[in-house]
Amino acid sequence: MNHSKTPTLADVGRVAGVSRGTVSNVFNHPDLVRSDVRERVEAAARQLGYDGPDPRGRVLRNGKFNAIGFMPPGAYAIADVIRSPYGRELVLGVSLACDEAGATLSLVNGTEETRTSTIREALVDGFILGHSVDIDLITSAQRRRLPFVILESDAGPDINSIRIDGRSGALMAVGHLAALGHRHFVILSIRRTSGPPIVHMPGKGKITAGFQLDYERLDGFAQGLAEVNLSIDDFPIIETTPGEPSAGAVVFDRFPEATAILTMSDWQAITVLDEAVRRGINIPEHVSVVGFDGTAESARTTPPLTTVTHDIVGKGRLAAQMVFENGQPRQIIMSVELAVRGSTGPPR
Amino acid sequence: MNHSKTPTLADVGRVAGVSRGTVSNVFNHPDLVRSDVRERVEAAARQLGYDGPDPRGRVLRNGKFNAIGFMPPGAYAIADVIRSPYGRELVLGVSLACDEAGATLSLVNGTEETRTSTIREALVDGFILGHSVDIDLITSAQRRRLPFVILESDAGPDINSIRIDGRSGALMAVGHLAALGHRHFVILSIRRTSGPPIVHMPGKGKITAGFQLDYERLDGFAQGLAEVNLSIDDFPIIETTPGEPSAGAVVFDRFPEATAILTMSDWQAITVLDEAVRRGINIPEHVSVVGFDGTAESARTTPPLTTVTHDIVGKGRLAAQMVFENGQPRQIIMSVELAVRGSTGPPR
Repeated sequence: MNHSKTPTLADVGRVAGVSRGTVSNVFNHPDLVRSDVRERVEAAARQLGYDGPDPRGRVLRNGKFNAIGFMPPGAYAIADVIRSPYGRELVLGVSLACDEAGATLSLVNGTEETRTSTIREALVDGFILGHSVDIDLITSAQRRRLPFVILESDAGPDINSIRIDGRSGALMAVGHLAALGHRHFVILSIRRTSGPPIVHMPGKGKITAGFQLDYERLDGFAQGLAEVNLSIDDFPIIETTPGEPSAGAVVFDRFPEATAILTMSDWQAITVLDEAVRRGINIPEHVSVVGFDGTAESARTTPPLTTVTHDIVGKGRLAAQMVFENGQPRQIIMSVELAVRGSTGPPR
Repeated sequence: MNHSKTPTLADVGRVAGVSRGTVSNVFNHPDLVRSDVRERVEAAARQLGYDGPDPRGRVLRNGKFNAIGFMPPGAYAIADVIRSPYGRELVLGVSLACDEAGATLSLVNGTEETRTSTIREALVDGFILGHSVDIDLITSAQRRRLPFVILESDAGPDINSIRIDGRSGALMAVGHLAALGHRHFVILSIRRTSGPPIVHMPGKGKITAGFQLDYERLDGFAQGLAEVNLSIDDFPIIETTPGEPSAGAVVFDRFPEATAILTMSDWQAITVLDEAVRRGINIPEHVSVVGFDGTAESARTTPPLTTVTHDIVGKGRLAAQMVFENGQPRQIIMSVELAVRGSTGPPR
């Protein structure tokens, strides 16, 4: 037998004494083939060193890639998702659904330069799009006639979306701190461009750039403050990238009078806790901190982080399931809860 | 203009007054096209709602998927990798290299049932294979003529591999504890099948199933013990899945005389620390614990974990780079270091 030439499906058929279609079925639809025939074909394949039809050919024949594309939230690259505690839990949820479906999870790069070509070219059956979604991405996904779900955005009744009620969550966070008696706040919002923290002094409370979810949360903070006769314009807003280690230093150096820190991400809050530890600042005795998201690690910090929680893993899993189902578009709003833990207390 | 029919590359060419080849170049090799021609084609594409050539066709034409497949270590599903601190750092390293190369990272399922078909069918340009690799997987990858790298295994000079010097690391861990004066050990090894902890009493030190790396580490432990006139047969070996929360309970309930716990994974060691906290057992005063891997979180536990470290992120990144380079096979052995932190001290 000539082994120097790559064996083909036709070769296997000849050796096994069956048609090419039967050989193809043994690899792609083995349940359709009688077991003795299947064994004969498999023996012939082993003998020839044939390992199955070229995946590229299969792709054209039935059109299914058996993969789902995950485009990160924010304008993140793949590594940014893995570094982010929130990103990891989202991916864990998507992974669970992929494992259940026996599908591949393709993590694609979400940065500006590559986003639109990625949507056009990724070899996937559908997408989960993070909240940096813009109309070009949605249009490209629709043109490919692929099911997709957007997260933490709302694009109307014809597009699948899952988001949390961030405004209510922000309201809960402020309400909790106000009920404890706090009157001096600092707000951390998520910087959506790269760079160091940007400080907006009281009264200049317009963040430089934000997504729908960012403005919703600011609205929730503003509403909560108004309910206790305070104005969000009375307080500084610091735009900072989650994970940016200098966020805590900016708060403690520039706003030492603050007794309560509101954030839009557990990761932001945790870096503030880390800085407090470095400076010997006692949380919550000296200052209270509230996170946002409800990542698993927020329950394991010292002290455990009071935060606005939602089922992040469940969100990722549901998003993937909606892509696999490819049904009528649905718009899901997930509820949030305030988990009161050890990082909040009465003002000093 | 008829928009109900999907616009084709030929339609765009007609409207722009150029050949199909030129339209194709604008999408695939824009640097080859004069800028005014490119703008004309792009305008025509926008007008028609044409969004680029079908990715399936591109796949057949140039054969590149621009994706790398990551098959998890152990017989893990995708979710298991994301849950594992070691797995996440490995994926972070691979992600960094993918971001640099502008490639997609395809996480594929590593469980028994799907592994061989995954290698045959995944639409990727190469693979990183975790250490559960067996000869069938290697053969399948070779048949597809795709570059691949195996981790924490050695398959000879013709196959790319990256592994750590686990034997030396294990030796360092024992040497450190022995130098502190410890004589009563418990060893945790990694259970490679699913299920609760399996206890091997002293003298019955044969683990039920292990990979090359597991036996290497056991050899290192054995050698280190022999150097202080102890035998590994004098001590219990507990096979337990990293992350299994009952591991610590097994150690403390069944082997209360132990003053030193050797493990093969930071995650194992951290679950033991967690159990100690629950029981009010003081580490390291009552018992010393050593991890293995050097995950970032091992430095942040209370107390910080003494552990055998290596550059996990660097390993993942190098593996991906070797796949992208597709050069002559190389076998890399990475060094390890003992990071002495707060979880080890003299015996009580």
